[in-house]
Amino acid sequence: MENIKVLLWGFGAMGSGMAEMLLKKKGVDITGVCDKHPQRVGKSMYELLGTPRGNRAEVIISDDIKSLVREGCVDIALLATDSFTAKAFDKIQFLLENKLNVISTAEEMAYPKASEPELTKQLNTIAKDNGVTVLGTGINPGLIMDLLVVALTGACIDVDEIEAERVNSLSPFGPAVMEEQGVGITQEEFAEGVKNNTLAGHVGFNESVGMIADAIGWKLSGPVKQSMEPIVSNVFRKTKYVEVQPGNVAGCSMKGFGYVGGEEKIRMIHPQQVEPQLEGTDTGDYIRIKGTPDIHMAIKPEIPGGIGTIAMCVNMIPHVINARAGLKTMIDLPVPRAILGDMRDLVVRD
Amino acid sequence: MENIKVLLWGFGAMGSGMAEMLLKKKGVDITGVCDKHPQRVGKSMYELLGTPRGNRAEVIISDDIKSLVREGCVDIALLATDSFTAKAFDKIQFLLENKLNVISTAEEMAYPKASEPELTKQLNTIAKDNGVTVLGTGINPGLIMDLLVVALTGACIDVDEIEAERVNSLSPFGPAVMEEQGVGITQEEFAEGVKNNTLAGHVGFNESVGMIADAIGWKLSGPVKQSMEPIVSNVFRKTKYVEVQPGNVAGCSMKGFGYVGGEEKIRMIHPQQVEPQLEGTDTGDYIRIKGTPDIHMAIKPEIPGGIGTIAMCVNMIPHVINARAGLKTMIDLPVPRAILGDMRDLVVRD
Repeated sequence: MENIKVLLWGFGAMGSGMAEMLLKKKGVDITGVCDKHPQRVGKSMYELLGTPRGNRAEVIISDDIKSLVREGCVDIALLATDSFTAKAFDKIQFLLENKLNVISTAEEMAYPKASEPELTKQLNTIAKDNGVTVLGTGINPGLIMDLLVVALTGACIDVDEIEAERVNSLSPFGPAVMEEQGVGITQEEFAEGVKNNTLAGHVGFNESVGMIADAIGWKLSGPVKQSMEPIVSNVFRKTKYVEVQPGNVAGCSMKGFGYVGGEEKIRMIHPQQVEPQLEGTDTGDYIRIKGTPDIHMAIKPEIPGGIGTIAMCVNMIPHVINARAGLKTMIDLPVPRAILGDMRDLVVRD
Repeated sequence: MENIKVLLWGFGAMGSGMAEMLLKKKGVDITGVCDKHPQRVGKSMYELLGTPRGNRAEVIISDDIKSLVREGCVDIALLATDSFTAKAFDKIQFLLENKLNVISTAEEMAYPKASEPELTKQLNTIAKDNGVTVLGTGINPGLIMDLLVVALTGACIDVDEIEAERVNSLSPFGPAVMEEQGVGITQEEFAEGVKNNTLAGHVGFNESVGMIADAIGWKLSGPVKQSMEPIVSNVFRKTKYVEVQPGNVAGCSMKGFGYVGGEEKIRMIHPQQVEPQLEGTDTGDYIRIKGTPDIHMAIKPEIPGGIGTIAMCVNMIPHVINARAGLKTMIDLPVPRAILGDMRDLVVRD
């Protein structure tokens, strides 16, 4: 059997991380990379990664997706360019219409129905019409605050309330994330950003709450409510990409609430900051289910966001290739898993 | 749409617990119960459970499975009678040949290929020939020491070693489990039982190790090694069903080891005992993955075995009805989840 062929669209931290991971795996080849960054276009993927090419074919990064894609040219495209379904839509449509399976890192695509029901229907139709599958995934949304919650409810006779908390470090992340989360700015700037809707914070509560509710059969009685507060640092904090003066913002604490019959049933707590250990904050992922039985889960420290998202996207490749055509979410497919053998062994070809 | 129809075969602690759970759910009816226990045969299921029948049809427990089963008479049969595939085989075959989907609580059926590859092939063929599906599940094997491990590796780029530990209480369990685990006997009797192979201990390491290895693509280089030690009590312990004198056996500590290329790669640690709190033992479920990244998960206290197995079997009903024909395992199907709405909403009828 031929190796599985993968196209990467987006070669920032996530896309290039997926490339590094894929190059360590058996039975899979990267056959094309699309990225618009001027310092990457025209360069060799292997050179940019600092990985020996060996006897593999050269891959030159192109900013022209049309020159890279022909109908059925790869088994799957990994799209790591956007956070929002509306922004990723045209790109996903283009890939699906070229009969390519797609995995998207866009947070909203993890459960697109929650924020974009109309676009979700369209993507499902386009995927089905072209006999391919599209999935959104990542560490969160995608696993920690949703799929893992759903899986643990599988051991429950009944569920009364769900709380998922993710306390994580933003230290490994670059300038884009610092800006989205307001790291390093003053409290006044943060307040301004919240008011003007220019701080993205965490994108995913709609998706995680929607996925959990639909999976276990709760009908949400209203929209997911969200709050966003600055995490103000008492000490100086510094990473490779940002400095935080005492009194300024070290991160962003978000909460989300899902209501069933007007009652708060699903609670999401997600404070993200750089260098949390400097003020004694223990990072971790926590799931608390009140039900029959109660379940209290802790993962300490948290599963790191960057590595986790890279791994989830690559590890879901065989499941997406094997799935029936259409738009799928993590609750439709078998559980994710590491791929330590030949990736081709996991693909069921007709 | 008509309610989903369920047949229960086996009405001990697990079967009757599934009945109680099913009676609280919407869109599903229990239409028959088979059990051989003389104190149950001929009795009303509702009377035995102490649950008002309401306007539901009477269900009288029968010891004659043939009188209860006609081709396609129910959507699914829940079989809670055995621990071993070989012992459950004829019953599963009978149900499949009557075109009924089957969920089995037999521990070996959670990954039957591990201990009974030949019977597994036969069951797969019989299920496919009859257009129905068979799944083995439960809390462990089925979730805690296998499926949950697999799901967490989904966030890993690479995995070096896996350890799963389940420290649980046997206090809620009845005489059959006390006997299987050697609770209440002397150390000499325990040693004798190990020698003569009359103590079952935990059944499931072959299955959990096999499921994990196959899921992530490790080829086991030899059989799973197991050890079994008595947990000797220093104090008097007492439950509804058993008394343990100081110096006697309060439970059974089992370990299991899976090898890849001769190296120990998967470690299972599973001490089970009555009244563990009397000597300060904290119960819990723990997963430790050494890899990229390392993952340390804890669920404290442990997810209780009885409730968990009941919930897993009932909650997997829609997934099994929806699955393609054949023998499936937990790694083939979407993640388990609680069912809080109408069960019919989860079934995709053709």
